[in-house]
Amino acid sequence: MPVNLTAPAPGALLPIEGLRLGIAQAGVKKPNRDDLLLMALDDGARVAGVFTQNRFCAAPVTVARAHLAGGHPIRALVVNTGNANAGTGEAGLAAARATCADVAALLGCEPYQVLPFSTGVIMEMLPVERIRAGLPACVAGLANDRWLGAANAIMTTDLVPKGLSKQIILAGATVTVTGIAKGSGMIHPNMATMLGFLATDARVSQDLLERMLRHAVKLSFNRVTVDGDTSTNDACVMIATGRADMPEITELGGHEYIALQSAITEVAIALAQSIVRDGEGATKFITIRVCGGKSADEVSRVAYAIAHSPLVKTAFFASDPNLGRILAAIGYAGVPELEVDKIRVYLGDVLVAQHGGRAPSYREEDGQRIMREEEVTVRVELERGTHSTTVWTCDFSYDYVKINAEYRT
Amino acid sequence: MPVNLTAPAPGALLPIEGLRLGIAQAGVKKPNRDDLLLMALDDGARVAGVFTQNRFCAAPVTVARAHLAGGHPIRALVVNTGNANAGTGEAGLAAARATCADVAALLGCEPYQVLPFSTGVIMEMLPVERIRAGLPACVAGLANDRWLGAANAIMTTDLVPKGLSKQIILAGATVTVTGIAKGSGMIHPNMATMLGFLATDARVSQDLLERMLRHAVKLSFNRVTVDGDTSTNDACVMIATGRADMPEITELGGHEYIALQSAITEVAIALAQSIVRDGEGATKFITIRVCGGKSADEVSRVAYAIAHSPLVKTAFFASDPNLGRILAAIGYAGVPELEVDKIRVYLGDVLVAQHGGRAPSYREEDGQRIMREEEVTVRVELERGTHSTTVWTCDFSYDYVKINAEYRT
Repeated sequence: MPVNLTAPAPGALLPIEGLRLGIAQAGVKKPNRDDLLLMALDDGARVAGVFTQNRFCAAPVTVARAHLAGGHPIRALVVNTGNANAGTGEAGLAAARATCADVAALLGCEPYQVLPFSTGVIMEMLPVERIRAGLPACVAGLANDRWLGAANAIMTTDLVPKGLSKQIILAGATVTVTGIAKGSGMIHPNMATMLGFLATDARVSQDLLERMLRHAVKLSFNRVTVDGDTSTNDACVMIATGRADMPEITELGGHEYIALQSAITEVAIALAQSIVRDGEGATKFITIRVCGGKSADEVSRVAYAIAHSPLVKTAFFASDPNLGRILAAIGYAGVPELEVDKIRVYLGDVLVAQHGGRAPSYREEDGQRIMREEEVTVRVELERGTHSTTVWTCDFSYDYVKINAEYRT
Repeated sequence: MPVNLTAPAPGALLPIEGLRLGIAQAGVKKPNRDDLLLMALDDGARVAGVFTQNRFCAAPVTVARAHLAGGHPIRALVVNTGNANAGTGEAGLAAARATCADVAALLGCEPYQVLPFSTGVIMEMLPVERIRAGLPACVAGLANDRWLGAANAIMTTDLVPKGLSKQIILAGATVTVTGIAKGSGMIHPNMATMLGFLATDARVSQDLLERMLRHAVKLSFNRVTVDGDTSTNDACVMIATGRADMPEITELGGHEYIALQSAITEVAIALAQSIVRDGEGATKFITIRVCGGKSADEVSRVAYAIAHSPLVKTAFFASDPNLGRILAAIGYAGVPELEVDKIRVYLGDVLVAQHGGRAPSYREEDGQRIMREEEVTVRVELERGTHSTTVWTCDFSYDYVKINAEYRT
């Protein structure tokens, strides 16, 4: 069961002027489920994207990167679930391009103005014909109020659709940011998440839009992990339709810039956290905060060593304050010259370890009380510098094994 | 159930002249089980050791390192299970030293001639009194034919005692190498294993003994992983009693040197593999071989990315040839400029992936046939250099979660 996460209420995901969504049941892998999403952008929209750093990146990632790099206005995004079109070689690239051509023919634009996205099983051929057959229904149903349906259509092993809207006032105009995302396994994004789509009607220059996306992703999707596996298909896209009644944001660091950046980052963090809350088999939402490091690299190493340790994650699943496993993970994180005597570890607000051992004030029942909560914060004070980071993860349960042992059946 | 691993037959673990073993039930954590081992060395024995690289190393590791570094002849090793004496700060160091003093008083040597080892739960105080009370029974029972009992006494979550003997002829004399080890979670040794004790009656100089141990560990205990967690207590010790009727080995690379090194390495590899075969919840023994790399670092990264991926490990548990997960792990291993088009991946002898995708000759039923075996080899050809490595691991099952969720109960 997802940890403190419910589907967005109907109407909670606000339309973005200049962006319409269409959904279909293309039967990519299984029948009778929404598995195809088309996002059509009106003229004038700007698009930024970040993609997986996995060297075995999927065909649609390669094609979407190339189309974005072309610099032509993007007019559509097409997303299928059920098949990742990854590890499919040249034929996979041809399949991704064919889907772009199909979309372009229906919308009256060029194939290079379409960005393709796929998620699902790896190393199987994309059924291009089924997607082609499903596209007319997407086009026929295009509307700007279908965000919840879209969040639903991009799910794979997700249990709950993920989305959020936020409104701010920019230069007197009401501006909306709406985002959707999907998880929920093979989650250890590196410069992107599984799939995240953010949109705003704000007017913002292309270079600042790209900058805002990179910043938001760094603080959100790049801070979560379910299982430490970086996907072949991660992508996060930010669309600005420019339909809001406001002057274009062109000043880095100005008031409007900061307000919009904050709203985008807030939506991105909530979406990233929702991926963890709905992580495969998750029963707990865990925040790992590491402070006092000498460098960004070392606080990140310590945080991910804890977040990736199967022993720590199974202890959280069991609500067992097995502090030794956390200390062990800190110890093998590979931080040079780490002085363990200086380190303090907190579970929630309880000091549990200091001077290389158990804190004298620590009582097992205090640890147990915190571990029984559905949301737990681990805080590590390294006391050797000023860098800090926060990473979000979930626990490791029987259901994680079950979901991933049975994924292809 | 351990994968193709049974306990050594009675009598299969051969005595080493000059080394006696005593066992007791000290009740460190639970009553009525052998949990204390004393190894007494006759005068003239030489000892080498390698220890965990975890910065949060346990108190006995710190003490054993210091005693070895002192250069005095080592006369005894004392090993307890049930408590790791790790994350216990200054009090833990005092406890480890007190145990050495207790052993020294009983055997008539100095405390700095005793090496302490502990394994078990982390961050709880070592019950020194119980160990002290158990030691006289160890001393009373000292004998050189108790290796199987010793292998049994050092087990924690191990299901099967692990040990092996090998005999070779060196300069006309029969020389024996006997080793025992224990696993079986928090296994991703770095310069050592959980606990491994190797002994020989060969005569070999101190520096060559240390060199032989380092070499053997590099090819054995440092090549296995169960869960990617490097323990706080890893230690591997090599004892040479020097009782064999042969001239001392002092020539690096000579015939006797190579013969003894080979025997030691062979025993170490078998013990390391037995730890994986008895890995927590293991149902499969997996060999990952990566060839054709530009550096030792990059073949190791690729091998461990595959070996540590929870998605790959659950697929093995399910006997599902989910090749995409293997490709994804190769892709995120962090190898710079990796050209995925050149990579070939084999399951057993079956070519499954090439040119960035599925091999045209690959049939799912061939993959399934291999995945159903209890022992599976994954071979990755990077085709960009001459470095290669082999890593051994096991799959990830419900039982891994169960064992580690319930470990402290």
